[in-house]
Amino acid sequence: MSDPQQTDEVDLLHHGDAEVDDGLVDFAVNVRSSAPPEWLAERLRTSIADLAAYPDPGAARRAVARRHHRAVEEVLLTSGAAEAFVLLARVLEPRRAVVVHPQFTEPEAALRAAGHEVERVVLGKDFTLDPAAIPDDADLVMIGNPTNPTSVLHPEAAVAALARPGRTVVVDEAFMDCVPGEPESLAGVPGPGLVVIRSLTKTWGLAGLRAGYLLAEASLVTKLAAAQPLWAVSTPALVAIEACCSPAAVAEASAWAVELAAERDRLVAELTHRGLYVVPGSRASFLCVRVPDGLGIRALLRQRGYAVRRGDTFPGLGPDWLRIAVRDRPANDALLEVLGELGI
Amino acid sequence: MSDPQQTDEVDLLHHGDAEVDDGLVDFAVNVRSSAPPEWLAERLRTSIADLAAYPDPGAARRAVARRHHRAVEEVLLTSGAAEAFVLLARVLEPRRAVVVHPQFTEPEAALRAAGHEVERVVLGKDFTLDPAAIPDDADLVMIGNPTNPTSVLHPEAAVAALARPGRTVVVDEAFMDCVPGEPESLAGVPGPGLVVIRSLTKTWGLAGLRAGYLLAEASLVTKLAAAQPLWAVSTPALVAIEACCSPAAVAEASAWAVELAAERDRLVAELTHRGLYVVPGSRASFLCVRVPDGLGIRALLRQRGYAVRRGDTFPGLGPDWLRIAVRDRPANDALLEVLGELGI
Repeated sequence: MSDPQQTDEVDLLHHGDAEVDDGLVDFAVNVRSSAPPEWLAERLRTSIADLAAYPDPGAARRAVARRHHRAVEEVLLTSGAAEAFVLLARVLEPRRAVVVHPQFTEPEAALRAAGHEVERVVLGKDFTLDPAAIPDDADLVMIGNPTNPTSVLHPEAAVAALARPGRTVVVDEAFMDCVPGEPESLAGVPGPGLVVIRSLTKTWGLAGLRAGYLLAEASLVTKLAAAQPLWAVSTPALVAIEACCSPAAVAEASAWAVELAAERDRLVAELTHRGLYVVPGSRASFLCVRVPDGLGIRALLRQRGYAVRRGDTFPGLGPDWLRIAVRDRPANDALLEVLGELGI
Repeated sequence: MSDPQQTDEVDLLHHGDAEVDDGLVDFAVNVRSSAPPEWLAERLRTSIADLAAYPDPGAARRAVARRHHRAVEEVLLTSGAAEAFVLLARVLEPRRAVVVHPQFTEPEAALRAAGHEVERVVLGKDFTLDPAAIPDDADLVMIGNPTNPTSVLHPEAAVAALARPGRTVVVDEAFMDCVPGEPESLAGVPGPGLVVIRSLTKTWGLAGLRAGYLLAEASLVTKLAAAQPLWAVSTPALVAIEACCSPAAVAEASAWAVELAAERDRLVAELTHRGLYVVPGSRASFLCVRVPDGLGIRALLRQRGYAVRRGDTFPGLGPDWLRIAVRDRPANDALLEVLGELGI
């Protein structure tokens, strides 16, 4: 529903879902599967019978707290991670807001929409985090981990080291459950000024449901909640959040992450073997690939029925970059074959 | 998730859903039925298979435009009417904001949360609209029609007459589909500064889904959309909005409204016969009733398993007022019997 918001040279409001037309094989959107797993779908279907009542977030909020070993008061349920960015942009009053790029563009778009100036720090070689690149007096730092679109996983210690008195560090961990065991997650680490945003969208095939949450110190959660619309998270989304925080679901996600990693590493090897540069250290469910004339290749792929995500709308990338989702082996092989036909 | 927000003497954030404990018969929440109708529930269950994709509001937005004979650009889909109030409070910059009371408390709560001062105009005898009570220089007027909690339906002409250059009039029509044929609705009347908010919550048993929309001039819709989180309305909510705007669904709602009206009028007659004052001209799915020691009666009803909505948290009412939902005849008769046992 939003209007295009052009800032500088790139369209921050372009997202992978805009790349997927009917009939194209989707390597553009970073969602694990074409539907939620059956056990979860069944719970959601059952919840339809309970829709006459207003949503009650209590059980889902407690489930998130248990899953991340946090106090209930440190949990805010949101209508997708996107709502978390908007709430933060409205409630925080940064004097110097820094967004670490390349990354998901919504945090910067939300800050700008709320009237804040945003300073971009573009990471250098291989897009690894260089804490020295962040201005000392930045009082708001937004970073993704693992990062969309680079797939880079920053060490927990490097991200945590960004924290300091008077600064809020927002870590978008929307793809953290792609990493088996989540060793670099800060979700379970309470700290003043540290905010972690999580999403159920990717792993659970729930992009359409708008289910996410945020972990932060209780005083900030209280402020964000006051800025949130009444009954912000729907009953089916609450059911999903509670279900996906169960130990069994966390174990299922972790097992899937192990499978994903194997197939991702195979795809990296194939693309590298063909002479393409894949950002090293890929740990998420997608690859960031430098392809000479990436936009042209993207157009040719579309003609052949394959959608990949253009990289040029991410600050710090450019027309030679593509983001490619990791699918299952047959789908990935089909993409590799088409790339071969294009001389890649 | 919100903290209590006390303003003046009443708790604006108290809502009927807080009155309903497990096991109480619910005469407190203004929702038609205990579940959406089966044809709608089936469509919602089917939509669960499509949740991996991000929501696409196009079809639902067009359906709303058709249903109210408006341009697509005049439609904003929202995550319930509650989100519409929050967006308006954030985007509008009123110098003198007036909320017409008694009414649903969220519009005032949203304005205050966004930092605006709010002036209350409390309607007089029988809670009918007196346009002269609105200050001439009010540049934002918020009113409900039919009004929660009074059930009063203001004439379309009286509401439309509130409009003037430089003023935004926001009409909360969340309960308008309780009125057969909706003769007093302004939803189909484009006008500068006129905003109509609608909800699917009540008639369709969808309070838990967060599905609503707003009709306004295109320029305001554009501004509100820019303040809305990305993908604000979930796929199941979009499916519901599209389905409930079909001519067949509108006809079904209208037929139900005719049934409701008959049962409501019977309940009014019964209560009036017992000497209670029911606000005259009730046209919604609830009654506003003056009961001496209403809070005491409410407590006694709860002991007997019946939840009614306290009236004292609505500005302009007080401890002698109760809001009672109109249920089906057996349920209403059961309530009347218990009231009889309490000497009413």
